[in-house]
Amino acid sequence: MKSPVVTCLDMEGVLTPEIWLAVSEKTGIADLQVTTRDIPDYDELMKLRLDILAKFHLKLSDITEVVAGLKPLDGAVEFLTWLRERCQVIILSDSYYDLVGPLMKQLHYPSLFCHTLEIDGEGYIRNYSLRQKDQKRHAVAAVKSLNFHVLAAGDSYNDVSMLQEADAGFFFRPPDTICSEYPQFPVTRTYSELMEQFAGAGGFRH
Amino acid sequence: MKSPVVTCLDMEGVLTPEIWLAVSEKTGIADLQVTTRDIPDYDELMKLRLDILAKFHLKLSDITEVVAGLKPLDGAVEFLTWLRERCQVIILSDSYYDLVGPLMKQLHYPSLFCHTLEIDGEGYIRNYSLRQKDQKRHAVAAVKSLNFHVLAAGDSYNDVSMLQEADAGFFFRPPDTICSEYPQFPVTRTYSELMEQFAGAGGFRH
Repeated sequence: MKSPVVTCLDMEGVLTPEIWLAVSEKTGIADLQVTTRDIPDYDELMKLRLDILAKFHLKLSDITEVVAGLKPLDGAVEFLTWLRERCQVIILSDSYYDLVGPLMKQLHYPSLFCHTLEIDGEGYIRNYSLRQKDQKRHAVAAVKSLNFHVLAAGDSYNDVSMLQEADAGFFFRPPDTICSEYPQFPVTRTYSELMEQFAGAGGFRH
Repeated sequence: MKSPVVTCLDMEGVLTPEIWLAVSEKTGIADLQVTTRDIPDYDELMKLRLDILAKFHLKLSDITEVVAGLKPLDGAVEFLTWLRERCQVIILSDSYYDLVGPLMKQLHYPSLFCHTLEIDGEGYIRNYSLRQKDQKRHAVAAVKSLNFHVLAAGDSYNDVSMLQEADAGFFFRPPDTICSEYPQFPVTRTYSELMEQFAGAGGFRH
């Protein structure tokens, strides 16, 4: 008997725009353009971001204002609906619950496992609290322990351990550098390609 | 720093009608009226149900036809939306993916962990495959291991281990027998009461 399927998806770059890139564009702060696609060490990246926010006196509300103006990527809502009709979906993101509300609403509230920010009384982001180190790998392992067949897709360095732990992992629109470092993961560039891969690996209709 | 919250909910009796009771009403087969609220041993209950289906030559399509005519309980969609705006939600049900599609669509596809049926070439239900014994307890434990604060609500014997494993567990419209056996779990009878309990235990606004 085949196990039922849970699919774990990265959020930014797979379903939504990169939040910090959007903040960079909106504020004109070029240093905020680096993402997990550029810097493999997430702690290093987040410390850099928080230092920049402090330097420019940006509050949580400055970030959420940018997020409120974002939309999911073209076709993301339809893709996610297609997937939720066929298997269970959990979004594994290294973003923060404090930031992503408007995007989750537009995606019709899929389950999201991510992190939390520490906000001070004046609304400044003082720190970030990772719910768990290497959370994406741990989440996939936990779901597998419940006897699910786990598929996964992501685009960044922080997705690699999730793809490795999953029964089948796929890149979606990754930068070339990651593709060549991890050639074992099939590369998809459109939702249609990803749907075809998921349908094959999950045994559900395309 | 407070951990983010995942709420685990039973499906039948909490969000939707009892599927097997609806089948009993529709077919007039009184023996299908027993549920997990009456028989604590789930294997015993499912064997009884499958024997009855075989005896009356009922196919999977006879059951799914009944389910297609069901609606979530009054207020369930609004309650679930309220909850998904405030925390992550996973439905833990001892029902079957093969049966619940029309109900999940009406609930806007929350994540659902349940089981699968074995269907033969003629469309008869030949057996059931429990994804995991005591799956509700295991799921709560797995989610806790990912550093979430877990709330839970259910109405039946098969929910008790989920309520025990959760950081805070609540009964929703339980039969009197279970209440008196497990007096440690607060009893709620309306979504408003359950929302108030969740808001208190989860630290989010009511």
